[in-house]
Amino acid sequence: MRKILLTAFVLSGQLLFAQTNKPGNLIQYVNPFIGTGAVDTNSLSGSNFPGPTTPFAFVQLSPDTRDAPDDPASGYDYNDKTIVGFSHTHLSGTGVADLFDVLLMPTTGAVKLDPGKVEVKGSGYRSTFSHQQESAKPGYYQVMLKDYGINAELTSTSHVGLHRYTFPKSDSAHIIIDLNHSLDKKRSYWQCHIIGAEIRVVNNTTIEGYRILTGWAKLRKVYFHAEFSKPFTSTVLANGRRSVENMPIINGTSLRAALNFNTTDNEQILVKVALSPVSIQNARLNMQAELAGWDFDQVSKQSASQWETELGKIKVDGTLQQKQIFYTGLYHAFTQPNNVADVNGDYQASDLTIGNAPDKAHYSTFSLWDTYRAAHPLYTFIQPEKTAAFINSMIRQYDTYGYLPIWQLWGDENYCMIGNHAIPVITDAILKGIPGINIDKAYEAIKASATTDHPGSPFTTWEKYGYIPEDIESQSVSITVEMAYDDWCVAQLAKKLGKTADYEHFMKRSAFYKNLYNPKTGFFQARNKDGKWVTPFNPLDYGGNGGSPYTEANAWQYAWYVPQNVPDLIKLMGGNQSFSAKLDTFFSLANKPGDVNGNASGFIGQYAHGNEPSHHIAYLYDYAGQPWKTQFYVAKVLNELYNNSSSGYQGNEDCGQMSSWYTFSAMGFYPVNPANGVYAIGSPILKNAVMQLSNGKTFSVTVKNSSPANCYIQSVKLNGVAYHKAYITQLDIMNGGKLDFVMGAKPNKSWGTKPDDVPPMWGYTN
Amino acid sequence: MRKILLTAFVLSGQLLFAQTNKPGNLIQYVNPFIGTGAVDTNSLSGSNFPGPTTPFAFVQLSPDTRDAPDDPASGYDYNDKTIVGFSHTHLSGTGVADLFDVLLMPTTGAVKLDPGKVEVKGSGYRSTFSHQQESAKPGYYQVMLKDYGINAELTSTSHVGLHRYTFPKSDSAHIIIDLNHSLDKKRSYWQCHIIGAEIRVVNNTTIEGYRILTGWAKLRKVYFHAEFSKPFTSTVLANGRRSVENMPIINGTSLRAALNFNTTDNEQILVKVALSPVSIQNARLNMQAELAGWDFDQVSKQSASQWETELGKIKVDGTLQQKQIFYTGLYHAFTQPNNVADVNGDYQASDLTIGNAPDKAHYSTFSLWDTYRAAHPLYTFIQPEKTAAFINSMIRQYDTYGYLPIWQLWGDENYCMIGNHAIPVITDAILKGIPGINIDKAYEAIKASATTDHPGSPFTTWEKYGYIPEDIESQSVSITVEMAYDDWCVAQLAKKLGKTADYEHFMKRSAFYKNLYNPKTGFFQARNKDGKWVTPFNPLDYGGNGGSPYTEANAWQYAWYVPQNVPDLIKLMGGNQSFSAKLDTFFSLANKPGDVNGNASGFIGQYAHGNEPSHHIAYLYDYAGQPWKTQFYVAKVLNELYNNSSSGYQGNEDCGQMSSWYTFSAMGFYPVNPANGVYAIGSPILKNAVMQLSNGKTFSVTVKNSSPANCYIQSVKLNGVAYHKAYITQLDIMNGGKLDFVMGAKPNKSWGTKPDDVPPMWGYTN
Repeated sequence: MRKILLTAFVLSGQLLFAQTNKPGNLIQYVNPFIGTGAVDTNSLSGSNFPGPTTPFAFVQLSPDTRDAPDDPASGYDYNDKTIVGFSHTHLSGTGVADLFDVLLMPTTGAVKLDPGKVEVKGSGYRSTFSHQQESAKPGYYQVMLKDYGINAELTSTSHVGLHRYTFPKSDSAHIIIDLNHSLDKKRSYWQCHIIGAEIRVVNNTTIEGYRILTGWAKLRKVYFHAEFSKPFTSTVLANGRRSVENMPIINGTSLRAALNFNTTDNEQILVKVALSPVSIQNARLNMQAELAGWDFDQVSKQSASQWETELGKIKVDGTLQQKQIFYTGLYHAFTQPNNVADVNGDYQASDLTIGNAPDKAHYSTFSLWDTYRAAHPLYTFIQPEKTAAFINSMIRQYDTYGYLPIWQLWGDENYCMIGNHAIPVITDAILKGIPGINIDKAYEAIKASATTDHPGSPFTTWEKYGYIPEDIESQSVSITVEMAYDDWCVAQLAKKLGKTADYEHFMKRSAFYKNLYNPKTGFFQARNKDGKWVTPFNPLDYGGNGGSPYTEANAWQYAWYVPQNVPDLIKLMGGNQSFSAKLDTFFSLANKPGDVNGNASGFIGQYAHGNEPSHHIAYLYDYAGQPWKTQFYVAKVLNELYNNSSSGYQGNEDCGQMSSWYTFSAMGFYPVNPANGVYAIGSPILKNAVMQLSNGKTFSVTVKNSSPANCYIQSVKLNGVAYHKAYITQLDIMNGGKLDFVMGAKPNKSWGTKPDDVPPMWGYTN
Repeated sequence: MRKILLTAFVLSGQLLFAQTNKPGNLIQYVNPFIGTGAVDTNSLSGSNFPGPTTPFAFVQLSPDTRDAPDDPASGYDYNDKTIVGFSHTHLSGTGVADLFDVLLMPTTGAVKLDPGKVEVKGSGYRSTFSHQQESAKPGYYQVMLKDYGINAELTSTSHVGLHRYTFPKSDSAHIIIDLNHSLDKKRSYWQCHIIGAEIRVVNNTTIEGYRILTGWAKLRKVYFHAEFSKPFTSTVLANGRRSVENMPIINGTSLRAALNFNTTDNEQILVKVALSPVSIQNARLNMQAELAGWDFDQVSKQSASQWETELGKIKVDGTLQQKQIFYTGLYHAFTQPNNVADVNGDYQASDLTIGNAPDKAHYSTFSLWDTYRAAHPLYTFIQPEKTAAFINSMIRQYDTYGYLPIWQLWGDENYCMIGNHAIPVITDAILKGIPGINIDKAYEAIKASATTDHPGSPFTTWEKYGYIPEDIESQSVSITVEMAYDDWCVAQLAKKLGKTADYEHFMKRSAFYKNLYNPKTGFFQARNKDGKWVTPFNPLDYGGNGGSPYTEANAWQYAWYVPQNVPDLIKLMGGNQSFSAKLDTFFSLANKPGDVNGNASGFIGQYAHGNEPSHHIAYLYDYAGQPWKTQFYVAKVLNELYNNSSSGYQGNEDCGQMSSWYTFSAMGFYPVNPANGVYAIGSPILKNAVMQLSNGKTFSVTVKNSSPANCYIQSVKLNGVAYHKAYITQLDIMNGGKLDFVMGAKPNKSWGTKPDDVPPMWGYTN
């Protein structure tokens, strides 16, 4: 059943694709519907949204099919049949829902101020729609709202959403503004609610207002300034069930408005909405700076042009589907982190004061547990200026908060997930020599983040026990192995800065993973503070967030996490043969259906590509002398667990990480340790890839005989010279290397298998 | 039982008084314990706090006996036996609890970070205390914390609290900082909770941090900077049940800290804590500006000196108890509105942005349903500059919010109670010629507040029906009669500004009270939107806030509210005789115990001095030719329903209103209509009163034969000339009038009884 549906959706996705994109450029390969809806209840949506955004923008304007979005967290599910409206802020690929600010919906007929229920036609202002009358491309989204005969088109700049609604003839046309959207049914977690809101009718073409709310982001203040191309004739403002006509202002907590128009057939009404996290005044300023006029097509074209520039940083060739997946992946990777500062640099800092960023940008949406793995390493190559800006934004959290972000949304810490993976991100950038980072200040922030106890990071306990006891802090195994990795990163930076005592201290801590390795079972296992192993132990038992030693994973999936010292992990597991055999078991041990949940999907045995703990594991065969198995499984994931349909990802896209895995792996290499300058070689599937580097050079990959069947490397040349190593280094890339692969259907077991071919634990020359 | 207890407390109050004040000035008459605790469960506390504040200050530092204060809302109940600590912000006299920010508590022995339960000794860091070892006067509070042998003294400036703790010898002395105080047990209403908080150890004498919370005030951000006169040796920081030692910072939602010291016997440690509603930087600035040094006695002396200046604006003579009640009343009236701006003028506006006040002050805590009656009229005489500043602050709410405050706390609207009584406040000030108000802007704000539908004020409904239908909006009778009064005020200002159409429109609305008068019952009664009276009707039925046509009152108490047109009310009720007879019944009809609740107390028949709807009623006999009955009941209230004990008020003091009723009435006159420039004459009880006016003149009152028995006016002279009128006007006062009363034990029924003697509905010459 699942396969049949999958095929159907792939076709549908391709169909849409053909309708909405023109050939001749890279944005034609972006299909914003990829990742917008899983095809059955046993798989996961990527939780991506189809609406327009410019790269790394504040405003991300997209249709919502759900009024109180929870899962998928993007608000849009490709399987839904109705659209409730178009809201201006979205998260792309997360597992938690938030944002969805300032929803607009054009309607005709009786004024309905209630959104209505999904799938219940006529129950509110929502409308049915069909994918046949819907299209999307970078900088543009369009849908026919069937209940009203209104064609809605969307585009945006960084801080402004622009709507173009084509109405039928009507003496009762309306544009609904809903400031209660996403919170009508309060989500049970995060104590979500609206603290205050306002809608003000400034004049008959201007609406201003705000909503202040607490949710996954502790406090968000969303101010807006909206202008209409045509004067409305009257208004209805409502707070909950109370409504008033033609009043100048309304304050409350559940605010909605209807702006009424008379329209001729095919009359277009445009609306532009600027947002600010600081004030209405700043929202006005943002509109003035970015979208003073009304030229929808020009704005859309500018957005597309920005995307073309960004996507052009890697030029690839391959099959159409590969290019669609690849460029949509880059598009998703550049959808965040988001600049949450106004055009004048004002932003809400993590202490909830108003800061001003000297470079007029403050980036947030740091899903670091996901993105430190491949997204941030990717940014260092093709977004080096942004990388510095991201890191400087993170350091501003340190200034007001005392430590670096764990999961930062809207400039504010929400402590989602574990570890302190801003540390590898910053370490990697500094080791790679990214300019624009104050290294001493960065180290100060990193050291504070590795020593100051904070939620999920009990360093006093860490130093006392040499591991995290499960009876003190749950998720103890995951925290222990990941914290040890972060400590290794601190140590490398300390070493670079000549801080020997720090280096030694953090290197010692970086080996603490050993204290949870149980040689009797061959797994990292939880211990209590008395030192005893937590029982009963079943390596298949799956944990969520809290209440289990493993974070969104099981012992099998966390058995492989020592990226800072894979040789020692191999040694712990009894050597190369034993290690590889265990990997074989891992990739073949059938999962129990009971263990599958929202974060575990995309299975190959116990390998779950749908969530991040598995992401590096296929590459580990390289370290044990069996690189052909890395090639096999990496190719299998690339070819089978990504596609160009709405269910194109096997789990949450996770703010660019799932895509960045593809970006690296499709080019043939992957940062198993995201901060040591080494990239393990897998199985490239593209014909060709050229990455434009910040030093003016290019790094290119060519692949001969590429096909799903030809997943095995036959031979490799680096800069024209035969190359046997199962890895490349940062220097190989930055020197403008050219990597030529020849692929085949049978493993070449003599390639990459010598001891010297194994990826080392350090890729730099010093 | 109640009487016995009452006596005991009066004595106790006097005892304390004698201990804590020196003769020779006016502040000696202030007993900050008045209103801090009711003596039995059938009466109400004034909800005042005993700790130090400067006039109209931001920081109001006071002991809390409750950890999660609810009722009394001041956090301190004179009946309690333990103190949990000293927090820096308080409300004085309100019926709802909020604020209580940044609690400090000195302790010795084991570190206890939990506040412990009231009355349960040793259950937390709280300590027992006794009133024998406690004292308070303006600018100073002191208590011996018996469990620890620590003498705690407090004083303050406008933005800074200064603590002086005298420790015993101890190698485990502590100062606890509790940012979770007041919210440990969440109050069920207002969705109170802490959104975020931080404690940062800047160095071993400096702590900084904040708590951001939602509560009665929608969003409060409380930043602090604290300095200690002695370095602490170590720290414990805790978030909920997790604590860490000697960490530089902690973030969370339930934060507490223990700062540890070694002390010698009688060693004093001083702590100064500056607050800001905007940022830690501003908190530092506030301290720098106001309290750079460490001279506790000097700070206390300066505070006392400020109070001496403010209290000196009215000089009175009378019995010791009268002077104590009078000056403590003035002290309470000047405890708020509070300047919620930092010294640089930054404040949080009602749209939750940061504003900057040009005059470096932004006032809030506007309990207008209470204070428009007598407190604001009083301010116009003796705080004219502040009156303009209050009004300019209210108009700033109009700018960001669209209408004037109803109940404003911390710069933000909370919609508590009914009406739009900023309108009479501003109207009164403008009619009195208070300088510093932009009259056109003020009228714009007033008109918007009288026409823009908002919670509790459905003006569309008002204009459609000519009354508020109970089936549309509860509390409909109270809203109707009070809205009609506010409309009368708008009309007067419109007339002054020559806006004839507005004048006529609002005058028409000001008569809408008639539409709810039921001639069959003789009461204002609720009607539904179909025009039918709501049944069953029992004039004794008491309503709270919502669910009843009457707001914290019954039909008897709301039968008398037409301050803009008392003659018409008299006419509705059948003329002077019938009106007076009905008043007689009102003052003698025994209350049913079931009708008594938290807001109904201080009964004389159905008259309940404990809440504001009754406040003008005793003066109404003046309007019907029986002024001796006004004299009788006013004197009765002055003599019997106020005293100088902890239960000195018969209900919530209500941000100065209960006190201001006393201030006016004790001098012999009262603004029945707070905006028409007319003051009805009652029964002066002081020997002498001299009010210093802003125009350099004085208005004085002398009273011959004053005593509780001699409650009746025998004769009056105004400026030496025999005076028969039962009222004086604004002009009489501002011209520097001298009013001389001769009192006696029997009514002089020929004084003030002629038609011309009756207080008119307009006191100005134009």
